[in-house]
Amino acid sequence: MRVLGVDPGLTRCGVGVVDGDPGRTCRLIAFEVVRTDPADDLGARLLTLDRALADLIARHAPDAVAVERVFSQHNVRTVMGTAQAGAVAILAAARAGLPVRMYTPSEVKAAVTGSGQADKAQVASMVRRLLRLPDPPRPADAADALALAICHVWRGAAQAKIMRAGARASRGVDERGGGDASQDLAGVRAGGLG
Amino acid sequence: MRVLGVDPGLTRCGVGVVDGDPGRTCRLIAFEVVRTDPADDLGARLLTLDRALADLIARHAPDAVAVERVFSQHNVRTVMGTAQAGAVAILAAARAGLPVRMYTPSEVKAAVTGSGQADKAQVASMVRRLLRLPDPPRPADAADALALAICHVWRGAAQAKIMRAGARASRGVDERGGGDASQDLAGVRAGGLG
Repeated sequence: MRVLGVDPGLTRCGVGVVDGDPGRTCRLIAFEVVRTDPADDLGARLLTLDRALADLIARHAPDAVAVERVFSQHNVRTVMGTAQAGAVAILAAARAGLPVRMYTPSEVKAAVTGSGQADKAQVASMVRRLLRLPDPPRPADAADALALAICHVWRGAAQAKIMRAGARASRGVDERGGGDASQDLAGVRAGGLG
Repeated sequence: MRVLGVDPGLTRCGVGVVDGDPGRTCRLIAFEVVRTDPADDLGARLLTLDRALADLIARHAPDAVAVERVFSQHNVRTVMGTAQAGAVAILAAARAGLPVRMYTPSEVKAAVTGSGQADKAQVASMVRRLLRLPDPPRPADAADALALAICHVWRGAAQAKIMRAGARASRGVDERGGGDASQDLAGVRAGGLG
């Protein structure tokens, strides 16, 4: 499956596209940072972002979009901009008929580094390793967007595994039953890292 | 000028359209509440809102759009939904090439009732009087959207008056000079109420 990850931001919006399959390594397709001018009015900035995302979706034809879930614990001004940019990303995906999943920063960090408390450098370093890149993707917004896309591939894969295990159990093929999400995820992660 | 006011919300988004000119009473064109189902996923909800706003803009051809400015002092969940719905409204306006102005709730309340601390009932009651309606517009989201549109007509008118006064002063026609925004606004309001 191909996933477009979006780390929403009004001034800098990270986007990353990866291909990945259950239990396999992910492959980098593209990444970039969409920038809008803080001197422009909000309408013009959201329109720039909307057009860039629609163009990326048309160009890379992802199967799904993963967007970072925004919390308002941080700076009020930043959070509003992030929520607005996130809304534009979700709307662009919906307009293209694509499913959207949202992940908290901790979920993404845990998926790619094994720790929900990892810092930006650790995330970028793991994204480099997982995608077999010569250097960590820069800037950090792009690395975060790729981490989101990888997280979605793995979570989707883990979910599919759970469903298959559930189906096996209900057919009586696998007596151990439905499986555990975090164990499945760890299995997929190890597979991805192998 | 014709103004579309938007009181953004994900579950209920108030919209109101008024015609108005400097120093004259405003005229009601339309109002409604766009609803989206909380059981639907966020992408589908934002898409419903986007389509409804694009349709309203095409149908009523406003000259400008006024959107309530969101603050994050309130409930976190509500604020995120409001910020997302607001972003969709601003984007819809920008896509149609319309100027967007944002007003805080206090600015809107002060414009239509004279007090930034007015409650919803006072705002609805003044909207009814200002638009010469038999009853206050319901629900409250629609009344708030109409108040936003009226606020923009008057603020725009006040701003135009200030600019004209400034031009006169610089030509030496009016010795009193540039004028005061709140006085001008009060003058316009009194004219609108007359």
